[in-house]
Amino acid sequence: MTGKVFFSVTMSLDGFMAPEAVPAEDAFSPEKQDDPGVRRWNAKWSELQAWAFPLRWFRENLKLGEGGEEGIDNDTARATYERTGASVMGKRMFDLGEKSWPEDAPFHTPVFVVTHEKRDPWERPGGTTFHFVNDGIESALLQAREAAGDRDVRIAGGAETIQEYLDGGLIDEFSITLAPVLLDTGIRLFDRVEPDRIALGQVRADASSRVTHLTYTAVKR
Amino acid sequence: MTGKVFFSVTMSLDGFMAPEAVPAEDAFSPEKQDDPGVRRWNAKWSELQAWAFPLRWFRENLKLGEGGEEGIDNDTARATYERTGASVMGKRMFDLGEKSWPEDAPFHTPVFVVTHEKRDPWERPGGTTFHFVNDGIESALLQAREAAGDRDVRIAGGAETIQEYLDGGLIDEFSITLAPVLLDTGIRLFDRVEPDRIALGQVRADASSRVTHLTYTAVKR
Repeated sequence: MTGKVFFSVTMSLDGFMAPEAVPAEDAFSPEKQDDPGVRRWNAKWSELQAWAFPLRWFRENLKLGEGGEEGIDNDTARATYERTGASVMGKRMFDLGEKSWPEDAPFHTPVFVVTHEKRDPWERPGGTTFHFVNDGIESALLQAREAAGDRDVRIAGGAETIQEYLDGGLIDEFSITLAPVLLDTGIRLFDRVEPDRIALGQVRADASSRVTHLTYTAVKR
Repeated sequence: MTGKVFFSVTMSLDGFMAPEAVPAEDAFSPEKQDDPGVRRWNAKWSELQAWAFPLRWFRENLKLGEGGEEGIDNDTARATYERTGASVMGKRMFDLGEKSWPEDAPFHTPVFVVTHEKRDPWERPGGTTFHFVNDGIESALLQAREAAGDRDVRIAGGAETIQEYLDGGLIDEFSITLAPVLLDTGIRLFDRVEPDRIALGQVRADASSRVTHLTYTAVKR
């Protein structure tokens, strides 16, 4: 038995999964936090992700302490985490995360980073090991499937990486947490996807007081 | 007591409420139906609106005959229609509709068309009367409010007209029927909206097997 390949992201109502890019080395650099571009990025990112911060699971997974909210949002976030046996991510997401994740990165599974950078596996406390894959998205997915066993493979991001997998017909299903936020500019989730190649199917929608969790299947036409 | 001002549209998952524009005189012209642009427009429009065609209410309102599906989609479409005491629309939507609505246009209320064209009111059988407003969106809204009494005013479209009302802080709430469709190009629902001026609030989400009906409040910041 082999798991599914999925992605799960937060999207603004106008279709963005992140504010416009700032250089990865600036986004979390203490001395750059007063830069107007960095401030805007932080404000917009926080607005988009605001639903997640109060959750019990979020606090637990990032070791921020006890407590936090339970309910639909928490159950959805935890279920996404628990189904994931391995993740795949692009280089930019890794570069950003490397500067912002705590010492034990919050995956606790193997993570395959699609990059041109040659680098030995990077093992973190808590079970996250980053593997650097230099021969493309299909190879990264094969390795992630192998590592995940019968659990699912999550294409973690960023947008470009998700688009490549979606456009390649390699995604089985996906979840969008739709936030009641307008960003106006930024990185679109569905840029570059060729709609004549992918048909979507409606699976379910669960709304909390903050966001709506949408699930779809994706099928190559 | 005065009603609310709302809009209600179908949006693709990638944020479009219509395919890219074709000239209004071509879209429904019998001799232009083989034009590749018109064919594409029709195919994409049909894909986006596919959830509505089988509905009992849709068939009833357009006098297409008895029968049709009931359920969440039908209830939502009917409720949107029933709450509406008057509509406002832009000139392009009117121009398209004038060529495609049946003899008794499917509004059955006063409709205020924001346009530079000076024209006498146009009364259709079945209770729809088009009034042509030449002095801007606020005047059209005032007239629509007056005509609607204690029912609600619907900003019917198109996208540009909705954006002007939203950006002006004139919308109380809105509904989006989110279709599991990617259009990739077309007319975006939320282009030109200045997000620092409008805060959205999550109200509810109801999913059918075909689409998700989302409702939000809009508040001027």
